[in-house]
Amino acid sequence: MNIERIDQLLSRLFEQDRRATAKIISLVEDNIERAYIMRSILKQTGKQMVVGITGPPGAGKSSLVDALTKFYRSKEERVGIVAVDPSSPYSGGAILGDRIRMQTHGTDRDVFIRSMGTRGHLGGVTRSTADVLRILEAGGYHRLLLETVGVGQSELEIMRISDTVVVVLNPGTGDGIQAIKAGIMEIADIFVVNKSDLPGADRMRNDIEMMLNLSCDGKAWRPPVVLTSAVSGNGLESLYEKINTHQAYLLESGQRDRHRIERLRQETWRQWEDKALAAFESLWEATRETWEHAAQADPYEVARLLWEERFKGDKWDE
Amino acid sequence: MNIERIDQLLSRLFEQDRRATAKIISLVEDNIERAYIMRSILKQTGKQMVVGITGPPGAGKSSLVDALTKFYRSKEERVGIVAVDPSSPYSGGAILGDRIRMQTHGTDRDVFIRSMGTRGHLGGVTRSTADVLRILEAGGYHRLLLETVGVGQSELEIMRISDTVVVVLNPGTGDGIQAIKAGIMEIADIFVVNKSDLPGADRMRNDIEMMLNLSCDGKAWRPPVVLTSAVSGNGLESLYEKINTHQAYLLESGQRDRHRIERLRQETWRQWEDKALAAFESLWEATRETWEHAAQADPYEVARLLWEERFKGDKWDE
Repeated sequence: MNIERIDQLLSRLFEQDRRATAKIISLVEDNIERAYIMRSILKQTGKQMVVGITGPPGAGKSSLVDALTKFYRSKEERVGIVAVDPSSPYSGGAILGDRIRMQTHGTDRDVFIRSMGTRGHLGGVTRSTADVLRILEAGGYHRLLLETVGVGQSELEIMRISDTVVVVLNPGTGDGIQAIKAGIMEIADIFVVNKSDLPGADRMRNDIEMMLNLSCDGKAWRPPVVLTSAVSGNGLESLYEKINTHQAYLLESGQRDRHRIERLRQETWRQWEDKALAAFESLWEATRETWEHAAQADPYEVARLLWEERFKGDKWDE
Repeated sequence: MNIERIDQLLSRLFEQDRRATAKIISLVEDNIERAYIMRSILKQTGKQMVVGITGPPGAGKSSLVDALTKFYRSKEERVGIVAVDPSSPYSGGAILGDRIRMQTHGTDRDVFIRSMGTRGHLGGVTRSTADVLRILEAGGYHRLLLETVGVGQSELEIMRISDTVVVVLNPGTGDGIQAIKAGIMEIADIFVVNKSDLPGADRMRNDIEMMLNLSCDGKAWRPPVVLTSAVSGNGLESLYEKINTHQAYLLESGQRDRHRIERLRQETWRQWEDKALAAFESLWEATRETWEHAAQADPYEVARLLWEERFKGDKWDE
């Protein structure tokens, strides 16, 4: 695809053209002119914050995202949603989304839903997810929601992209203990006890508050606990407000700036990593036969040899 | 810790001293003189193949590993076991292992069990796992078993360390479909239908065989399906034989050599990655203030500037 065509797509993206948005996402996911596209987009974006929604399977994350989206829509806000399933190899469209969500928002042009799986390694999906969120921002979707299907290590890593992490738990399921075990308590900025019409919701809130008493001592932000019901819509206004409060806190405390710089560091490192990997791979291919015949080659020694071959004058041991 | 002391530990490791084995593992996990230690060890190891055991939670992986270990012990073979739980932050000892396993093998000096969690990122645990397996080999444990708790993306990535991957499924649970969804069918070298005394075992075997008819056409290795019962011990001899057959196949077909070279490439790249990251981080720290004041810094531009600063004469765009 030539650069002229990409520039056209980019202009249309910035004019909030939905099809251009979808097309740009596909190009970036397929790594076609990714660097060029993302340079244009990153210059214009990064203002909108990302709300991550995570929690154990069955906690009702999708329904909550759906209800929250409805709430934003009632305030005329445009919503971009990225749903990530690190255990699925499938990407594209909204195949992971539940039917309800598609029925509700499938025809709403002010809601954009994108599902991502992991083709290849996790670092790849984390990066693509960050890219897609910024593309959605560029396309005029100012409320950015990021949802994961589970709470494994992969999901935690993906959640680092978010500015505000909402952890959704289910009353009466032992979710609390599971969540502590999985390490998601540490990343929560807001807790949601969903399906609050079920028995055990208050008890779960108390349990979380007690745990916060222990862990939040002296911290500037204590995660609020919100009871919601995606079915009745109860608690959504409160959740909406807590998200806004947290984002105001991020701005005032300077945390937002620290996040921004941390992400700049990470993205810069990724450029380095790509560059170093490309250099490594071409050298490796060029010298492959040597290693094929070395039965017990020492990777440390091989690394040093290749490094000094590539970066002449840059000594490995210095 | 000084090098002399480490050399002493290494000699004791090679003499199959159990305490030295445990100590060396701790040092490598804590990244104390890791490079020095692993260089010594990698020179002497890599001959023994790793059998990976994976499958959905509840499929009976731990019991199967336990039964297989008993079988190896009955043939006087020494067994090293690494159990990995990517969702747990805990490492060390055998805390993940079930009580039964500890009761059976806890006092057997010819069995070494090590549990690993993920502190930090997944790449780290994959690497540590590979290291620990080689340390166990150096310590004279010649049957190397690698077990994961689940079958998420993280577990699949860890399984790449294995030469032979055994996928354990449970009859009558819909495990087959889950496994296809999670992408574990592609990595299986051997299928085990465990708890074969339960109804549905034969049907599950047929389902797997049918799927293999579709996917293995023209492939040199067709994964055998073994029915086992960890309780009665049925099928273990057959599993033992299939593992040996697969390993003989790897050697004869040249696959083993390709694995070895692929791992050398990966480990060599990791050295590069560490080196590049260290270079990047020191440069980033040195120039941090500049980026803090650049509101909309372009990571691509920053990466280029830092790269050309570090690797003088190595142009970014070439």
